[in-house]
Amino acid sequence: MLQRAALAVVVCLAVAMLALLPTRAAQSIAMGLPSFSYPFSSKPLTRYDGGTTKQVGTYNFPVSKGLAGVYMTLEPGALREMHWHAFAAEWAYVIEGRTRITLTSPEGSVQIADVDAGGLWYFPKGWGHSIEGLGPGTAKFLLVFNDGAFQEGSTFSITDWIAHTPAAWVSQNLGLTPKQVQQLPRDQVYISRRSPAPGPMATTAPRGQGVPPLKRSHVFDLKAQPRQDAVDGSSLQLASAREFPASFNMAGAILHLEPGAMRSMHWHPNADEWQYVLSGSYDLSVFASEGKASVSSLKQGDVGYVPMGYGHALRNTSAGPTDVLVVFNDGAYESINLNDWLATNPTSVVANNLQIPVSLADQLPKTNSTFAPGR
Amino acid sequence: MLQRAALAVVVCLAVAMLALLPTRAAQSIAMGLPSFSYPFSSKPLTRYDGGTTKQVGTYNFPVSKGLAGVYMTLEPGALREMHWHAFAAEWAYVIEGRTRITLTSPEGSVQIADVDAGGLWYFPKGWGHSIEGLGPGTAKFLLVFNDGAFQEGSTFSITDWIAHTPAAWVSQNLGLTPKQVQQLPRDQVYISRRSPAPGPMATTAPRGQGVPPLKRSHVFDLKAQPRQDAVDGSSLQLASAREFPASFNMAGAILHLEPGAMRSMHWHPNADEWQYVLSGSYDLSVFASEGKASVSSLKQGDVGYVPMGYGHALRNTSAGPTDVLVVFNDGAYESINLNDWLATNPTSVVANNLQIPVSLADQLPKTNSTFAPGR
Amino acid sequence: MLQRAALAVVVCLAVAMLALLPTRAAQSIAMGLPSFSYPFSSKPLTRYDGGTTKQVGTYNFPVSKGLAGVYMTLEPGALREMHWHAFAAEWAYVIEGRTRITLTSPEGSVQIADVDAGGLWYFPKGWGHSIEGLGPGTAKFLLVFNDGAFQEGSTFSITDWIAHTPAAWVSQNLGLTPKQVQQLPRDQVYISRRSPAPGPMATTAPRGQGVPPLKRSHVFDLKAQPRQDAVDGSSLQLASAREFPASFNMAGAILHLEPGAMRSMHWHPNADEWQYVLSGSYDLSVFASEGKASVSSLKQGDVGYVPMGYGHALRNTSAGPTDVLVVFNDGAYESINLNDWLATNPTSVVANNLQIPVSLADQLPKTNSTFAPGR
Repeated sequence: MLQRAALAVVVCLAVAMLALLPTRAAQSIAMGLPSFSYPFSSKPLTRYDGGTTKQVGTYNFPVSKGLAGVYMTLEPGALREMHWHAFAAEWAYVIEGRTRITLTSPEGSVQIADVDAGGLWYFPKGWGHSIEGLGPGTAKFLLVFNDGAFQEGSTFSITDWIAHTPAAWVSQNLGLTPKQVQQLPRDQVYISRRSPAPGPMATTAPRGQGVPPLKRSHVFDLKAQPRQDAVDGSSLQLASAREFPASFNMAGAILHLEPGAMRSMHWHPNADEWQYVLSGSYDLSVFASEGKASVSSLKQGDVGYVPMGYGHALRNTSAGPTDVLVVFNDGAYESINLNDWLATNPTSVVANNLQIPVSLADQLPKTNSTFAPGR
Repeated sequence: MLQRAALAVVVCLAVAMLALLPTRAAQSIAMGLPSFSYPFSSKPLTRYDGGTTKQVGTYNFPVSKGLAGVYMTLEPGALREMHWHAFAAEWAYVIEGRTRITLTSPEGSVQIADVDAGGLWYFPKGWGHSIEGLGPGTAKFLLVFNDGAFQEGSTFSITDWIAHTPAAWVSQNLGLTPKQVQQLPRDQVYISRRSPAPGPMATTAPRGQGVPPLKRSHVFDLKAQPRQDAVDGSSLQLASAREFPASFNMAGAILHLEPGAMRSMHWHPNADEWQYVLSGSYDLSVFASEGKASVSSLKQGDVGYVPMGYGHALRNTSAGPTDVLVVFNDGAYESINLNDWLATNPTSVVANNLQIPVSLADQLPKTNSTFAPGR
Repeated sequence: MLQRAALAVVVCLAVAMLALLPTRAAQSIAMGLPSFSYPFSSKPLTRYDGGTTKQVGTYNFPVSKGLAGVYMTLEPGALREMHWHAFAAEWAYVIEGRTRITLTSPEGSVQIADVDAGGLWYFPKGWGHSIEGLGPGTAKFLLVFNDGAFQEGSTFSITDWIAHTPAAWVSQNLGLTPKQVQQLPRDQVYISRRSPAPGPMATTAPRGQGVPPLKRSHVFDLKAQPRQDAVDGSSLQLASAREFPASFNMAGAILHLEPGAMRSMHWHPNADEWQYVLSGSYDLSVFASEGKASVSSLKQGDVGYVPMGYGHALRNTSAGPTDVLVVFNDGAYESINLNDWLATNPTSVVANNLQIPVSLADQLPKTNSTFAPGR
């Protein structure tokens, strides 16, 4: 009897501990160090007729609270259907191939534009949009959202909406007969494919008469931007709100790293950073204060993440150049490099701080440098 | 004995499950579909000497996270006492009768104004204000707050403050003798009544000399606004920050729906929507993505709610006109109508997306339309 | 046996209740009234070679959700090392002695400035900075952060960062030999001391050539500001974003209270308030609505807190003058005084509201007054 009563206690304790679990899990993340890289390259694609997709966000990459990502492909003529996002803006980069987007604003203006490899678009939160693969070849692109909990499955799609609104309402709203309404999709289409693929832009126009174009463009040619801050071939191409004003609350860049080169030690005071390896491979060093730090290894197709204010650096680990797409959840690009910080302070402060002789402090960098070449 | 030990386990399990309950309740709301309407019309009023009140917010209408509401009546001469709200702005609409408001800003300027049926006011977060019933007849009005957790009972009232501050402090602060302080209310007054009711505005002025008026008016005549976007008699009267600049972070409108008419399928990219049925009745269709949608029926005095970005439409179900007050927690009025979205996209995209022949796609609406008439 | 089974139940219930504890604790704070004062003066200092520190935030003073504070001292030549804060801006006031600060912006500009007793600085979130004690005598100052959860231990320090980044990376980044890197600190320095103390400002300059100065100053001489709103010697010195534009999202002031005088009953519509007693002592009356209010006693070195929108007043309880530093988590200084509120309303409204004769209402204050003299 005593044993059974003791067993009762043990069972109850176990259950009570389970009740505590969510809190404890949250604490263990807060007190330890989460992973700053996600092996996105090894994750399977979900296949549709006309395209594929996979996603990364807080549900599988817990540290990425501020930004989530989707990798998507579309074959020629395939359409990622008309949809919108209730809570997140979308910043996208075309890796390969060609796409055509449509974007409708609350003012009823529209942009219809082709975006080729190296180009990007920015879709504000809640605006209606669509994406088509133009061909030749499969279009491959990355969508980045300024909400880490974003999931591709929770987008608001036009066919899902129409299919789940009473048929009589749809008929009245669209001016169609009940019979015509029956021809509309009964469920979400998500990706739809037509043949042949869309013709040249000149053959494409809004259905309505006199639809105004968007006041400013929401697409941008990132690959055509100047390579700045260059050091021995490593450099940066930038698309902040300064270069691309439509993207008022997100920014992005491509880091080009020569073999052995580092994007030098720095932090961003204003934004979280989301990384995608376009080519090559690198190690990511992240400093989280209180003596906590880690180094992660990423290869082509993997995703990295650095929370706002965390110190970090990237070092090319491949034999050739490495290109990294970095995306921020703020329109301004702000960065403080360790070297610049050292250069702006008096030698006496630096020597005292690092507890080194003035002669050694004098040898520390005296200029800013975004990149440190391999040695 | 075994049975008793087993009972101990059951009791403990039950208690442990209770500990889990808050989490599970929250998950069930997140995974299912909450109610988008609240039967406010059937809820009892709390009666005071001089007025009545009832309220709706997240505590009784869980989906309404962004906005809460209070229905209030004041008899002639009754005063909803001087008070302020620590966390919420107040946007109010007078349904019936006449009111007089006072509003004091942090700069020490004031507005004293009469607001009649069809008029509204906007009180910024934290500004001091009062409301009087002017008569003839009972004043009936709605208060809408940009915080779903707002409760009327947690306002900061002048008498509650004075009653709960040490008498010696009150004496020193107001320059009154201790005996005079004893004449002040010992508890919150909330609603106070005087007779006769206040005289004309011309007889009313600030107590102090040279008190400056507010730089811009915080009251607005919504019923005098043009009826816009009219289709077969259905129309919209609007009070966004464009028409009423003082209301920088809230907006509102009255929808007039002819019998059978729809406020057509649309969504708001920037704001949650709070609805109150001024007259008539309607069905509210809400689309929440992922195949989730619902239709609710509302009648005069009921409240509806549509979260930011959710697709929705309203359809008049009464024999006569239906008027709906809609209030948003953003000063800009932004809306994307399904028909306008269809009109701004190329026919080829729409045909491919909806998987219909181009001939049928051609019959879809080619212009924007805020209302769809009954058929 | 029965007793043992009953014991099992009791133990299990106790454990299950423990699981509930976090929730109940939070509720008790929400339903009751937290303490609005913290006996900071009696808390021990943590001692370092060259300085001391202690801190107050939500971890020991639960009500202070919007602001946290650190008291720090630095001996001549001691350096609070180069560091930054990922989530909080820093507003600081020098109580005694002299300090030298360096502040580096994301644009690579710098300010190196001496801040003496009565002066303050504002460091934006994420900008790199350092603080030195200049002497003669120990520098004593207060750091106030716009994040109640801020802890001094979680700052990002330059030596902690370098010590926890792979040595090869540091070598490459700084252009040092591996042997030189070995001379750098192996752990966080936090406070470092040198002798002699730094020389005059004229001998101090950025290490780099042509480093631009900050566009606007981030230090401000609060003690040199005019004493405004004076009543019988009590007055206010203000540093809001109007007087000190760099501090765009924080503001501060010094209240000077003559013996027996009150900072009169008022509230702030836009900000939480953090208080530190510079000299003397006072009682703090706080009104939290719903009949909840309290009076706390504070003395030199203690900390007070008033949430946004809460009514409050301060009354000097010492024989001599009392000076209070007040800091807000908004750049604008907004305040509504009870007396001004009464002055801006009509006498008829005030008489009705307070349920007093018009003759008594007529005796209430008719002008604004920030201070009420002792009687």
